[in-house]
Amino acid sequence: MTAPLRIAIAGLGTVGAGLVDLIARNQTLLTRRAGRQLEIVAVSARDRGRDRGIDLSAFAWFDDPAVMAAEAECDVVVELIGGEAGVAAKVVETALSEGRHIVTANKALMAHHGARLARLAQLQGRALAFEAAVAGGIPVIKALREGLSANRITGLRGILNGTCNYILTEMAATKRAFDDVLAEAQTLGYAEADPSFDIDGVDAAHKLALLAAIAFGREVDFGALHVEGIRGIDPRELSYAEELGYKLKLLGIARPEGEGILQSVYPCLIAAEAQIAAVDGVLNAVDIAGEPIGEVLLVGPGAGAGATASAVASDIVDIAAGRFAPVFGQSSDDLEPAAVTGVDSRYGSFYLRLAVTDKAGVVAHITRILADHDISVEDMIQRHAGQDGEPVTLVLTTHATEEAAMRNALAEIEAYENVSAEPVMLRIES
Amino acid sequence: MTAPLRIAIAGLGTVGAGLVDLIARNQTLLTRRAGRQLEIVAVSARDRGRDRGIDLSAFAWFDDPAVMAAEAECDVVVELIGGEAGVAAKVVETALSEGRHIVTANKALMAHHGARLARLAQLQGRALAFEAAVAGGIPVIKALREGLSANRITGLRGILNGTCNYILTEMAATKRAFDDVLAEAQTLGYAEADPSFDIDGVDAAHKLALLAAIAFGREVDFGALHVEGIRGIDPRELSYAEELGYKLKLLGIARPEGEGILQSVYPCLIAAEAQIAAVDGVLNAVDIAGEPIGEVLLVGPGAGAGATASAVASDIVDIAAGRFAPVFGQSSDDLEPAAVTGVDSRYGSFYLRLAVTDKAGVVAHITRILADHDISVEDMIQRHAGQDGEPVTLVLTTHATEEAAMRNALAEIEAYENVSAEPVMLRIES
Repeated sequence: MTAPLRIAIAGLGTVGAGLVDLIARNQTLLTRRAGRQLEIVAVSARDRGRDRGIDLSAFAWFDDPAVMAAEAECDVVVELIGGEAGVAAKVVETALSEGRHIVTANKALMAHHGARLARLAQLQGRALAFEAAVAGGIPVIKALREGLSANRITGLRGILNGTCNYILTEMAATKRAFDDVLAEAQTLGYAEADPSFDIDGVDAAHKLALLAAIAFGREVDFGALHVEGIRGIDPRELSYAEELGYKLKLLGIARPEGEGILQSVYPCLIAAEAQIAAVDGVLNAVDIAGEPIGEVLLVGPGAGAGATASAVASDIVDIAAGRFAPVFGQSSDDLEPAAVTGVDSRYGSFYLRLAVTDKAGVVAHITRILADHDISVEDMIQRHAGQDGEPVTLVLTTHATEEAAMRNALAEIEAYENVSAEPVMLRIES
Repeated sequence: MTAPLRIAIAGLGTVGAGLVDLIARNQTLLTRRAGRQLEIVAVSARDRGRDRGIDLSAFAWFDDPAVMAAEAECDVVVELIGGEAGVAAKVVETALSEGRHIVTANKALMAHHGARLARLAQLQGRALAFEAAVAGGIPVIKALREGLSANRITGLRGILNGTCNYILTEMAATKRAFDDVLAEAQTLGYAEADPSFDIDGVDAAHKLALLAAIAFGREVDFGALHVEGIRGIDPRELSYAEELGYKLKLLGIARPEGEGILQSVYPCLIAAEAQIAAVDGVLNAVDIAGEPIGEVLLVGPGAGAGATASAVASDIVDIAAGRFAPVFGQSSDDLEPAAVTGVDSRYGSFYLRLAVTDKAGVVAHITRILADHDISVEDMIQRHAGQDGEPVTLVLTTHATEEAAMRNALAEIEAYENVSAEPVMLRIES
């Protein structure tokens, strides 16, 4: 049997501590599957004295993880510090430069600097594995990069943030306000004290950018992504969505559109009978369409110490066994420019909710504006408030159209004197 | 760039022809992902002259696939002949013995001879890849063997036969008789002219045996599996299942039970809200539970030329890139004996449907028999036929118990003079 694979771990939060525990607990099994022993040799974290419920005495301690990445006698450095730059970036660069493999759970780092780091890993002939960075424990990077590698991917969409999915699921079930459900999610530990990264869609967008790069053989260009979160969602949208046969989900979407790849994260309506629509609560899911496969859906825990440690340790097993793929599934030299298509070019259906004056001709005028922009209405709900003189709620869905056309129509609708409140527009995914 | 990977294909049915077409069609993409060109050099099939819609003129032709496996100048032999022994076995053995890699879609061969062939592949240091043999295009072998390799698997269950799932889905929707729906499935091409392998659970059992071997690090022992099909299913079971909040599915199930691993295929009730219960029609799905991951579900097309060609070609890409894992996820030397637990040791809940005489004390007597065997009733439906003197239908579900206890109770119930027809018993999976 080959010599043990020597591992250094940078960052001992819940995932890092969970990983140390997992490698000890599943040792026999891991040794068999890796074909050699996995041996933690060094660790680094901010606070050496903190009680993590694990015994660190057998490992070399480094106060500075970058020094560890440079100097520890190890084959693999596991980066669990997080953050798109700073220490984490330095650890990864140093380790790769020193000829060590990297396993990371850091989606922000990979989304912002993945293209550059992949080139470095390739130059050094080392693995830069990041299964844990996308959809937690779901082995979706492996599925996309290896399991479905013979396919031309025609589209993918994912529920990539468990916090948002939990909030939307709760809002759908109870029709409570966003702030209220967010506060509850924070109490339950499903949302951070500062939830912006999650609820503004940034976390999902990091993951989407990585999936899109692999799926379409493109360089990651995070800055070009169109990202919307769920902060502004009104519970009325969840009611109307349900009434119209849809569910409201925050989806990350990537598909060829126009000359490039549409890469967006936004809350949208999706047919209730779509498989991914049934994925509720904190779960994540990724739906991959390709030729010749058709469609494959993967569902599982998108976060948490166990799920993340599973992905990190499975990446380590692969490295121990000598299995690794190019970072984004093909040589960096072959990756094409990202060419992210702006959401304005998105071709699809829409949902609109308007508050309009309760008088004859108003609805006709609005549908005429839409028709003028070649947008045809699919479904319409008109709901009177019950009081005379109160505005009427008008909800409508359209057939597929280009987003630019929809935005032009919407500007005209908004300017119409009989539309009283700001219109709500959501995309519908088929 | 490395020299092309030279491929020989044995069997040119729809999958083989689809593979030839796919390798030509997605050539650029495959070359990038494999890091080298994939080049078909030889083919073999029964009928050279048949029009398959593909041009074979560039490939060496062999009338005898075993001769091709021995003599073609190739790195990989793709076995798409099928069948548990005979020519297919000879092709695989010959190719491995000659130091060539094997990619196969042959579940019967792998289920019956996988343990032996894995040892041969290991001895030769060659890949024996069989992603296409289980759940078609869903990359579940890869997910289980590599993506989740750090996990101690605690259980898995799968919808592994699209024909059965289609039939049960249709029966649930229409409450039509089994034979009727089977005939329709045959017309639609979802069932073979001789459907026994599918509807008697054998095909699902082949796949389950392979998944169980990887999940639990055991040798395949197909003969020890308990296998039931869906031939006897009465549409009434689908009605009552629905009424009780369940769906009826043919599941392949593997989990530690007693001293060994329960490995069974049977039609069973599963809570309608379980994720896998929502997988309808010809789709396949595998639900994997592990520690620390929790639960992961994979859903996709389980059959068809496209799905199978996707899996075969992705295996080829892996081999071209130098990535391969031990056949069952670890060295054959480390695989433990199968130790298949008999279904009598299964611990779980049950569904019973009885026809009983419509008179006082009968139901009490039946529940007393169950109680005598420590079986407690969870739910009960009693339905009168409307005619006096006609038997009453009694449907009940139990709390979890050992199957042996249930069978003993059932024997007593069957012998009771007020039970008129043969009782129906189905397992309930939680």
